[in-house]
Parts: sequence; C-alpha cells; structure tokens
Amino acid sequence: MNIQQLRSAIQAKGSYLCVGLDSDLHKIPSHLNNEPNALLEFNRQIIEATSPYAVAYKINTAFYEQYGTDGWNIMAETLKLIPTDCFSIADAKRGDIGNTGEMYARAFFDELNFDSITVSPYMGKDSVQPFMRADKTVIVLGLTSNPGSADFQYLQADGMPLYEHVLRKTSEWGSPENLMFVVGATRAERLDHIRSIVPEHFLLVPGVGAQGGSLEDVSKHGLINGGGLLVNSSRGIIYASSDLQFAQAAANEAKKLQQVMATYL
Amino acid sequence: MNIQQLRSAIQAKGSYLCVGLDSDLHKIPSHLNNEPNALLEFNRQIIEATSPYAVAYKINTAFYEQYGTDGWNIMAETLKLIPTDCFSIADAKRGDIGNTGEMYARAFFDELNFDSITVSPYMGKDSVQPFMRADKTVIVLGLTSNPGSADFQYLQADGMPLYEHVLRKTSEWGSPENLMFVVGATRAERLDHIRSIVPEHFLLVPGVGAQGGSLEDVSKHGLINGGGLLVNSSRGIIYASSDLQFAQAAANEAKKLQQVMATYL
Repeated sequence: MNIQQLRSAIQAKGSYLCVGLDSDLHKIPSHLNNEPNALLEFNRQIIEATSPYAVAYKINTAFYEQYGTDGWNIMAETLKLIPTDCFSIADAKRGDIGNTGEMYARAFFDELNFDSITVSPYMGKDSVQPFMRADKTVIVLGLTSNPGSADFQYLQADGMPLYEHVLRKTSEWGSPENLMFVVGATRAERLDHIRSIVPEHFLLVPGVGAQGGSLEDVSKHGLINGGGLLVNSSRGIIYASSDLQFAQAAANEAKKLQQVMATYL
Repeated sequence: MNIQQLRSAIQAKGSYLCVGLDSDLHKIPSHLNNEPNALLEFNRQIIEATSPYAVAYKINTAFYEQYGTDGWNIMAETLKLIPTDCFSIADAKRGDIGNTGEMYARAFFDELNFDSITVSPYMGKDSVQPFMRADKTVIVLGLTSNPGSADFQYLQADGMPLYEHVLRKTSEWGSPENLMFVVGATRAERLDHIRSIVPEHFLLVPGVGAQGGSLEDVSKHGLINGGGLLVNSSRGIIYASSDLQFAQAAANEAKKLQQVMATYL
C-alpha cells in the first residue's frame, strides 16, 4: 500500500488509527501459552478483531528480535496477516550509510513486504534515501516523545531546534508521497509549529490514549485535508483485557477511537 | 569480553584491528556457492585466517537481515565462530525508548551473545542506557564518515557541533568501561579535538585503508595508553582475493595492518 491508497483507506474507514503490535509474551493473556508462537496467535486475533477500525499496523521489531530467528519468523508471519487495506509499518528505527541502507531496505521491503519503515536521521541523507522507493514509504524520526528526546532534539542551532532542521532538510529529499515523520508532540502549539514546517506530510503520532484530550489536540492541530495523520495506540488496545475475550476487548477500544476520529475527519 | 579484556588482547596481539564481516553473497568468491549458507563458510574461513591479527570482529546486521531468518541464523552461527579472545560488535545502529531498548539489548546480548552493539544517539539517554550492562559495551555513533554526516552532525549549537554535544553528554551516562564511540574522522586535527573531549574512551574508527597515511594519522592522534582505539577494515581484508586462497589473502592483509599497528602501540 502506498500513501495515496492510505488516504483512500482513511476516508473509507473514517479512521486514522494505527494499532501497534508491541506484543510481549509476558503481557499477552495467560490462556495463550508461553511459547513464542503464542505471539502469532495473539497477533492473529488482535488483527482480525481490530482491522475494521484501523488503517495501519505498526510492528516494533525489537519485540520480535528478542526471540531471535523464532521472533523474526513470527514478524514475517504476522505481516502476512495484515489485511491489504491496511498500511504496514516496520518500526525498526534503522539508519546506516547508503550501501548498507540498501540492505535494510531489501530486508524490510523485499525479504519482508512492509509498506514502510521508521528511520533515524542522525546519519543524514544517504541513510534515508535508500528507503524512498515507488510504493514504499520512509518514516523519519522527527520529534520523539520519550524523556531522552530533550537531550539532543531540542538543541538550538541557527535559531531553531535540531528536530526542526531534521524536518526541513529531510522534507527536501522526498515528497509527501514517500516520506512521513514520527512526531511525538501532543501539545497543540508544538503541533501547529510542526504543521507550518511540513504542511503536507503525514505525521505518525505515537502514544495517544483513548481518553480524549490529547487525541482531540493531536487531531485538531495535526489533521489536514485527506488525513495526513496516523495516531498510534499499542497497549491501550492490545492489552485491553487479558481474559478469553481479549480480542473483542481490543476491538472495542479500537472502535471507540475510530468513532471519535470519524468526527474529526 | 569486556573492555578491560579488550585492552589485554590489544597488548597481547600487538593489534587494534577490527575485521568487518560485511559479507555479501554477490562479492564472496564464486567457488563458494550462491546459497545463504555460503556466507557462513566464507565467514568461517575469514575468521580462522585473520584471528591471529585481529582483536575484534564487527558484524553489520544489515548484511544478514536482508536474507531474513536464514540471515539471522547465519549471524548467530558466525558469532559462535569468533574466538573468545576477540571482541564482538553488532553493528546494528539501533536505538529506541527505554523499554524497547531493553528488548534490543536482550536480542543482541542474551538471545545472541554479542559483547557490544552500535547505537544511534538521536533519541537520547533512555535509548542508550539499556545497553550499558556489566561486561557489555555500548558504542554510540559520534561522528560518522558518510556524506550524510554533514547534514546534521556538524550543526552548530551553543558554539559546538552536534556530534560534540553527543560525545559530551553521552560520556556522562557511562564510563570508558562500558561506552565507546564511533568516530569516522581520520583527519588529524578533528581527532585531536575529539580526544580532548573523550580522552579515555575507546574510539571505533571505520574505513581506514591498508595504505599507510590515514592509519598513521588515526593511530597517532587516536591512540591512548592501553590502546583506546579500534580501527575497522572490511572490504580491504575480506575481499582481498576471490580465488581459492581468499582466506590466506585476507590473512596477509590483516597481518600487514597488524604489523604497522604494532609499531604504533
């Protein structure tokens, strides 16, 4: 799926919800067992139950790599379960020099068939460009929301913070048709500022809860014509319940978010 | 192997050579076949032949991930072939928020048994700290040598470039016993400056050729008492020849570098 098709999916479903498959053996319902393959069964049920309300699924590679080749297999099998009307994201935060970047692109776009991948900008243009392909999307870390984001991303250089340099410079390398940004900001004024820098690019916003407030702010200040926004929720959806009906509970949480999103679109 | 043991290996072998296993099916000798497992045989012979002259091996994960689970298996098997008197580096350039970083640490330190991993600093402290463990080492990207390094790493903030902020701030989070830096600089004045910022940390310098000059500069301005330096060579060693004696040719190149290094130690 490319970005144009993602825009259509957003309109068709009335949703810009991305479900984060941060699936962890220690947190999935105990009636699934404790084998790595239980993760695949968990993912299968979560995807089936939530896909009417979601337009994207984000697989954080760390959760799978911790199980070695078993985990890599589960990631590959999970990817195959994502419906074709949903956008798939490898949340891999890779980034390496040109020829090595090409290999990561092969790993996630050819060997696996992800639609997109998250990439760290620190190494600059030749670490980002290998992921800019027809019908594939690179999602560059702009501003993250973790405590450590304050260490470097807000450093002021030439009158603007580093993350703004990243948004401005990176947006020259691609277009809104093959480039998105991770933006952890949920405060209205910060989002307004970011929207003024990259008015047309999709923003992937992690970690918005089901409880109004921040979703409202993110939507009000992040949405553009045609969407331009993916809001991710992981734990709030996939761990909504640990009983036998966990998938239904996940669907309920996803539906709640979708219904609010539909009112903002 | 920890950093103290690495210092001992450097003294014992008279070498600070790191061999980069950037092994690529398209470049290995054609008499090995074209199956992914040929990579393992190639690595086995390269490691056996070069280990008398090297103190470290660096496995670039991109080269293996491009083959999916087969590649991940080959990476795991290759790691087992690295002698215990050599330091192993996962050149993975990972980096994610705290709890996710913990999973990458599990992937590379527990599921695989690497001694160290390279990490991108963009997301700050909580993305670096999970890799600081007893007897494990985190290697943070300080200054890289690719063309894209100019895009952000040299941005001036508060009178110094971003990479200097990274060196200064990151060095507060760990010690020379669990933290190294990737430094792509080979120019003497830049290395002198970096050494003034991190006088005691190991520097991992990629891409120094066999032909004197830059190796001399890097050694003269990067070495400290006890070494404090790893100089990586990948293609110049592992692809020294494509004939039946490729491993012997690799050993010859490694030996040449080691013999020069011994004179600088």
